[in-house]
Amino acid sequence: MAELQNDRFLRALLKQPVDRTPVWMMRQAGRYLPEYRATRAKAGSFMDLCRNKELACEVTLQPIERYPIDAAILFSDILTIPDAMGLGLRFEAGEGPVFDRPVRTQADADKLFVPDMHDDLGYVMDAVSTIRKALNGRVPLIGFSGSPWTLATYMVEGGSSKTFSKIKAMMFDNPKLLHQILDTLADSVTTYLNAQIESGAQAVQIFDTWGGVLTPRDFREFSLNYMQKIVDGLIKEREGREIPVILFTKGGGLWLEQMADTGAHALGIDWTLNLADARARVGDKVALQGNMDPTVLYASPERVRQEVANVLASYGKGAGHIFNLGHGVHPEINPETVGAFIDAVVELSPKYHS
Amino acid sequence: MAELQNDRFLRALLKQPVDRTPVWMMRQAGRYLPEYRATRAKAGSFMDLCRNKELACEVTLQPIERYPIDAAILFSDILTIPDAMGLGLRFEAGEGPVFDRPVRTQADADKLFVPDMHDDLGYVMDAVSTIRKALNGRVPLIGFSGSPWTLATYMVEGGSSKTFSKIKAMMFDNPKLLHQILDTLADSVTTYLNAQIESGAQAVQIFDTWGGVLTPRDFREFSLNYMQKIVDGLIKEREGREIPVILFTKGGGLWLEQMADTGAHALGIDWTLNLADARARVGDKVALQGNMDPTVLYASPERVRQEVANVLASYGKGAGHIFNLGHGVHPEINPETVGAFIDAVVELSPKYHS
Repeated sequence: MAELQNDRFLRALLKQPVDRTPVWMMRQAGRYLPEYRATRAKAGSFMDLCRNKELACEVTLQPIERYPIDAAILFSDILTIPDAMGLGLRFEAGEGPVFDRPVRTQADADKLFVPDMHDDLGYVMDAVSTIRKALNGRVPLIGFSGSPWTLATYMVEGGSSKTFSKIKAMMFDNPKLLHQILDTLADSVTTYLNAQIESGAQAVQIFDTWGGVLTPRDFREFSLNYMQKIVDGLIKEREGREIPVILFTKGGGLWLEQMADTGAHALGIDWTLNLADARARVGDKVALQGNMDPTVLYASPERVRQEVANVLASYGKGAGHIFNLGHGVHPEINPETVGAFIDAVVELSPKYHS
Repeated sequence: MAELQNDRFLRALLKQPVDRTPVWMMRQAGRYLPEYRATRAKAGSFMDLCRNKELACEVTLQPIERYPIDAAILFSDILTIPDAMGLGLRFEAGEGPVFDRPVRTQADADKLFVPDMHDDLGYVMDAVSTIRKALNGRVPLIGFSGSPWTLATYMVEGGSSKTFSKIKAMMFDNPKLLHQILDTLADSVTTYLNAQIESGAQAVQIFDTWGGVLTPRDFREFSLNYMQKIVDGLIKEREGREIPVILFTKGGGLWLEQMADTGAHALGIDWTLNLADARARVGDKVALQGNMDPTVLYASPERVRQEVANVLASYGKGAGHIFNLGHGVHPEINPETVGAFIDAVVELSPKYHS
């Protein structure tokens, strides 16, 4: 493997000194980029794009070609694991993901299994190793997975949900069944992320997109517990480098302390709390990734720059901050505004690291 | 006016001793009740139902007839004020509310005005006084309004939104324009709630449904500031009783302390924090209303009872708790489960007040 030329992101995750704050964006490879839309058009369906290692590599690298971003993230879907479990994933226009065979009963849950990382999910590993080679040491590559709770919401609801009524009914009335599902998912995610690490991912992020719809007690029991199992089971080091783990629970601002106690290296923070408070609460335990409101990117480049300055000032001096949005970049955003955003981080952050 | 026979709810809002924890539900008059669906069918459109004082009164009283609930809440829409401002409110199937004339420019904002409480919103006041008479002192009547920020989201976006991109772009690039809109809305809401109080409402709740999509700084500047103005401008006392004000910011768990400092009597709490923590944070400043996860009502009656016990135990002994869900009751819920829920509060709460 080519030697890493930019390790700012990995160093910041480990709270080591850097010359400036590293930056990347959730969904940085995505529809806001015309070059992404062009590749997507030639790929066919969204899952066809994920399954084609050359095209998945192409879109992963697009934001890196365009902007001075400090990390690439594997282009893939959050639902690869339940798809590999045979639940029949489809994407319906305007409806999002749909599972033809949702998991509702004991019999449904008994059929679930840890997918084979070669036969069932080899296409993801192929994409990881292809991207890693193509990056050629420019920036590190992030692998990712949905959290067990988040994957389970789609599997039990049969798709997206606003109310989470089916999985919550299961949680209240048959917690044992839900725990069985989450257990299989935690094993699957651990195996999946370890396979990504072995294929070349240099850091991993667990997206707990729906952890924030739970009560504090249920978050601990049904989401955090399983992220803890994953953190415990991950490969700690490879190629002589520690593999940092980032946990991101959208709407998890109230639970930072517990998340920091998992042994994860960093927490993703949405924009509903400020980094100064978050930093005071977690102390030296973890690095923090975030947290500019993604809608700032609808504003003028000047205003974006001002907000970047605010977020940098909020974290303050010293190591342990990775700049990111508090959620994925929206598809309607102007790529030039994204450029202004990334440039502002590059230009305004060095003074926090002198 | 008939003398109030059950003032548990009003006493609890003022942190005065009660015999048991009072209970009501957000959206308690709603689609989960077959009798509501019957009245709705004869009314025509949803706004026709809101505009018909007899039918609005009928649906307001339905949950009171069925369950031992301790408060009635005016049946109305959250968007009556922008509708009265002439923005052309329609309800599209599957899309929710739509405004034909959204507020996007200085010229749009300059046309906004404080609606006349007789000519433009008299139908709401007629409903309030009709309901108050029909209640005949059984339980107190709650008036309500959306918060200025929440109303503005619909007015600027032109309807519901997932990303709030238009109002946030305005907030970042033209905050002065947004402040002008919010100012008119704060004046309108104050006048509106005062008119409801004069028509017979005995407590009022401000629904800040979308305050939780803001950063802490923007929440203070664009939502909380205007709720503060409203709290300051409300009628304090009527018929020899204090008029309590409840603020409910969905997803506002991180900002309780600031909300408690507004002078509001109570805060509505969603289920993402537990009442013990919330109580410790706000101290004696305010009563707390909430906060059972509304999806608990998808579970069995036995499990519902267990969760009621948990929520009661979480608040603990003493005055100042009003039992409610953390958000509105869902339309699919079985009315018998709601009965089990209300009964559980009635039966299990007295020991916290001995």
